[in-house]
Amino acid sequence: MSQDLRKRIFTELDALILIDPHTHINALQPASQNLGDILGYHYYTELAHSAGLPREQIEDPNLDPKEKVGRLVEYLGPLNNTIQYSWLVEMAREFFGFTDEHINQQNWEALYDRAAAEMSADNWSEEVLRKSKLEAVFLTNDFDDPLEGFDTSVYIPCLRTDDLVFHLARPEVQERLDNATNSSFNDPQSLKEALGQLFQHFTDHQARACAISLPPDFAPAPVSDNRVRTAIEAIRLMGNETDPSHCRVISNYVFWTLTELCADYQLPFDLMIGVNRGVYASGVYQGQDLYDSRVSLIQYQQLWNAFPQVTFPVSVLASVTNQELTSYAWIFPNVITHGHWWYSNTPTYIEHDAAARLEAVPRSKQIGYYSDMYKLEFALPKFNMYKRILAKILAERFVIDRSWTEEQAIAFGHQVLRGNVEAVFNCTS
Amino acid sequence: MSQDLRKRIFTELDALILIDPHTHINALQPASQNLGDILGYHYYTELAHSAGLPREQIEDPNLDPKEKVGRLVEYLGPLNNTIQYSWLVEMAREFFGFTDEHINQQNWEALYDRAAAEMSADNWSEEVLRKSKLEAVFLTNDFDDPLEGFDTSVYIPCLRTDDLVFHLARPEVQERLDNATNSSFNDPQSLKEALGQLFQHFTDHQARACAISLPPDFAPAPVSDNRVRTAIEAIRLMGNETDPSHCRVISNYVFWTLTELCADYQLPFDLMIGVNRGVYASGVYQGQDLYDSRVSLIQYQQLWNAFPQVTFPVSVLASVTNQELTSYAWIFPNVITHGHWWYSNTPTYIEHDAAARLEAVPRSKQIGYYSDMYKLEFALPKFNMYKRILAKILAERFVIDRSWTEEQAIAFGHQVLRGNVEAVFNCTS
Amino acid sequence: MSQDLRKRIFTELDALILIDPHTHINALQPASQNLGDILGYHYYTELAHSAGLPREQIEDPNLDPKEKVGRLVEYLGPLNNTIQYSWLVEMAREFFGFTDEHINQQNWEALYDRAAAEMSADNWSEEVLRKSKLEAVFLTNDFDDPLEGFDTSVYIPCLRTDDLVFHLARPEVQERLDNATNSSFNDPQSLKEALGQLFQHFTDHQARACAISLPPDFAPAPVSDNRVRTAIEAIRLMGNETDPSHCRVISNYVFWTLTELCADYQLPFDLMIGVNRGVYASGVYQGQDLYDSRVSLIQYQQLWNAFPQVTFPVSVLASVTNQELTSYAWIFPNVITHGHWWYSNTPTYIEHDAAARLEAVPRSKQIGYYSDMYKLEFALPKFNMYKRILAKILAERFVIDRSWTEEQAIAFGHQVLRGNVEAVFNCTS
Repeated sequence: MSQDLRKRIFTELDALILIDPHTHINALQPASQNLGDILGYHYYTELAHSAGLPREQIEDPNLDPKEKVGRLVEYLGPLNNTIQYSWLVEMAREFFGFTDEHINQQNWEALYDRAAAEMSADNWSEEVLRKSKLEAVFLTNDFDDPLEGFDTSVYIPCLRTDDLVFHLARPEVQERLDNATNSSFNDPQSLKEALGQLFQHFTDHQARACAISLPPDFAPAPVSDNRVRTAIEAIRLMGNETDPSHCRVISNYVFWTLTELCADYQLPFDLMIGVNRGVYASGVYQGQDLYDSRVSLIQYQQLWNAFPQVTFPVSVLASVTNQELTSYAWIFPNVITHGHWWYSNTPTYIEHDAAARLEAVPRSKQIGYYSDMYKLEFALPKFNMYKRILAKILAERFVIDRSWTEEQAIAFGHQVLRGNVEAVFNCTS
Repeated sequence: MSQDLRKRIFTELDALILIDPHTHINALQPASQNLGDILGYHYYTELAHSAGLPREQIEDPNLDPKEKVGRLVEYLGPLNNTIQYSWLVEMAREFFGFTDEHINQQNWEALYDRAAAEMSADNWSEEVLRKSKLEAVFLTNDFDDPLEGFDTSVYIPCLRTDDLVFHLARPEVQERLDNATNSSFNDPQSLKEALGQLFQHFTDHQARACAISLPPDFAPAPVSDNRVRTAIEAIRLMGNETDPSHCRVISNYVFWTLTELCADYQLPFDLMIGVNRGVYASGVYQGQDLYDSRVSLIQYQQLWNAFPQVTFPVSVLASVTNQELTSYAWIFPNVITHGHWWYSNTPTYIEHDAAARLEAVPRSKQIGYYSDMYKLEFALPKFNMYKRILAKILAERFVIDRSWTEEQAIAFGHQVLRGNVEAVFNCTS
Repeated sequence: MSQDLRKRIFTELDALILIDPHTHINALQPASQNLGDILGYHYYTELAHSAGLPREQIEDPNLDPKEKVGRLVEYLGPLNNTIQYSWLVEMAREFFGFTDEHINQQNWEALYDRAAAEMSADNWSEEVLRKSKLEAVFLTNDFDDPLEGFDTSVYIPCLRTDDLVFHLARPEVQERLDNATNSSFNDPQSLKEALGQLFQHFTDHQARACAISLPPDFAPAPVSDNRVRTAIEAIRLMGNETDPSHCRVISNYVFWTLTELCADYQLPFDLMIGVNRGVYASGVYQGQDLYDSRVSLIQYQQLWNAFPQVTFPVSVLASVTNQELTSYAWIFPNVITHGHWWYSNTPTYIEHDAAARLEAVPRSKQIGYYSDMYKLEFALPKFNMYKRILAKILAERFVIDRSWTEEQAIAFGHQVLRGNVEAVFNCTS
């Protein structure tokens, strides 16, 4: 009975058209051009590398994409247990009519060619959105992105601020900020004005969020103008050689100022908490980051108290932080649970984490899922994975364990899948 | 088959009369007088506030309880997914004949009036206990509670010691202690004697436990008399302005001394580990506390080694600490697993945590559940939630996975629900 | 349907002959001589002690084994819920034809005598291996073990290095090392040479792994020769009185050097991360260790980057560290997930942890299980426990949730149970 119930609920959840509230899509080239764009996703390159494929074999910039796919396919066997691999097969089936059990050395070339043919259609990205039941996707834009050349009602800008908060000591980042704002910050006030210009630019282009990823040891706090003044002088003078103590001051000042601007411009501030960059220095591109799960949301206590008017959709990298997220969202009006991020975006952790949230956080304060994708084709299998798990939880923990009706369960599922995205990010279609 | 099995086991568990080993019941006013007492429970006010209800709208002391309920009901919609809300509906159904699906703007007044009528009966609290299958409940008494005017065989005193350990620098706490003991401590010996008087008073009134909640950074250790002497002088002189280093000494001294007294008076010492108070300073009453889950029971190593003769029923706030609790109770004879506390008192965490304990800790060393309630009506839905989860675990993980008979499973359930409460707290009826 | 499916998969998994990649078997006395050897396992003594049995009653070295068993049986009642107890009953049934429900005061003597009779057979250990479907087991050998008198194709040596890394300041450890290497280290070079001799000795005797257990605060790092030189002088001169700062230098130097030798001798280095020794000082033999779950694999970042050519099968003590293990094995080519260790070797944690690994780590990089046993009889119930859980996960999370065929699921199970043990430890039969 439970499996039939799950299927019925899944079918209803799957009928919905969605907005994907966090992706890394390039709006000027949203879909893949060949299978190399798909198998080049770090989830495959890093797993293949982990299973034995030398990095050098796939990272030559002159490597032909088809040759690259061939080299990666050799290492799919050791990965074919992973959920990440299952996304690949599901894409191949749903988009390219693949019918074999596995992608292997015998059949990959035919798949490559079929995919290339389909992807070359003028309307391929629209077709992918349609098949994926997606109406719009949020982007992750560099702070100096011109935000031009695309439809912002489909590709919704989001101001990504990691470079500003953590890398402003770098001369090239300073230069990018100066160029983007046609100014040259040299004190707290002018830096704040420059940041404000970015918000103006982004909101002029229908941006709906500000976002950042944060290391486990970050604890936001305001800093005095005098201290910041010295730090700004230091980064302007010393660049990459700036003393770390000044860099920490800059991080805190910029982060706090961004939050003030989120308040002024009424943008939610997506916090993605817990990543350490470059832990495996010899890893493949985008496959070097890991984490220290010893992080606590109490580090954000001062921030969330200081900005009741700002909404913070919060993602955590480790499942062990999910109970804190659940509890903080249950107590703080401005904290929203936001998707299942990266290393927690696998079924066992999604199931445990989502179940905990669904039963203890107000239903209006939960955003179920985002794809985090780099190419449009990934939304379909990733959202399907989530919807299957959501259907399982609703079936087992609400209909069976708590005697909800199926209709109630489906309505709840719809709200976390779509309704709350619209409400939190103010992006009603 | 599994669902029928769960129901059969639940029915047997539910037939038992229980003792609730931890509540915040006021013995002089144990049950609710109106629905405002129920909806005023912090679980509802904090969730409603989190979902958008301004604190001011429900915290005016002159607010009429019916008006308050009306304002809270407006915000029940966004909470109706939560397990906390399900307790509310279950109370309405079981105590007041409520038959609708949801409590909403249309039906709440009728429910309010019906509840007020029922609650006005002279024997309402006895009726609630009877319907809830409760024989007795443990209280949480201030250290200067006179413990008079109630039946201590039904309302069992418990000496709560947070104020003594963490707030003795406050002049009003010193004054309360002086008054309660008709003395005036001014050195380690006289402070210990004053604390001893409290134990005498409480055990004279059939107290069965000493209890305290502890922040994540607390690590009990003994301190030298000389160091304490200086600290006592400091708090007597400086009060709220006492240097934090002295306050830490006082905390350690009082905590260690309380444990010595637990040994002398043969009282179990309930440790509730992991709460940070006042994290969300603008939260509603009792809705401001959260936690830092980075706590370890190794902080209690010295304590548990030093006091083998004291029994410590231990609760942990975060599910990520539950494995440590399981392991420490498996090794230390004096550590007992105790219920599912607060932010871990939701089904997903209870299920994971209880399953881990039930299969690895001696069956005689596990107390399944306590309600933590402020008003008697809450025991029924909270214990029912636990009993359903316990039945699920016993069915799936013992009868199905490990081929236990139903009778064995039920006997085990009875022991953690009732038998161990009697044995650990020496409160056989 | 799910239960039938689980049974079918279990049957297929159970048909496999296995190699146990980590045990504490004494190759000269691998099986038990009487039930005292089995009930003397720390899992039973520590649980019985936790449930009330005084240590003194079972730790007299002159205690007759039968008397000891009798005393332990008195305390089995309070433990009969535990999975550890279920291993005992399963051994009694499978090896000694026990048919009662429980082992108790009425039937234990008959069981003791029956067991003693069976165990006295000349070929008892071969019989146990055969019934347990084990072809070979890894040992845990002291660094100065002569490794003689047994068949290394069945009892595979493994160089255990805790003493070298953490206790080299002790004069008796220095003496053992000097004797084993017929040398006398007095500087970094001679110490490295001595360690190298151990590797030569062990690999000459078909050792297939180096292994160590590590406390939560250990973070491997190389140290300069000059610093080590001073530390070696200190331990040679001061012994047990050596300043802790020198001991830390020795630990780091020896650990790093062992890893270099693992590279030279192509031995995998088993890391068992997270144990604090002697937490419960009054505990029974081997029942005193616990842990602080606040450990992160980021502490091993430098090590795993520095030694890409060394394979590290990693075990973690706490389930809360399992997601980090899963993620680090997904990224680092040289990190392998290795079994379910000690306090995480209970069904609820195994199920959660194994499910997470099986779906996110390359299938070639997962070693499902080891028994950690001290006597051969334990492999059967422990592996059976794991195989039942593995069958449950494969049935529910792969066949049902992800539409795998049963054949695919079984092949995956075989790989983590056996294939990867052969591949990782290079011990193909």
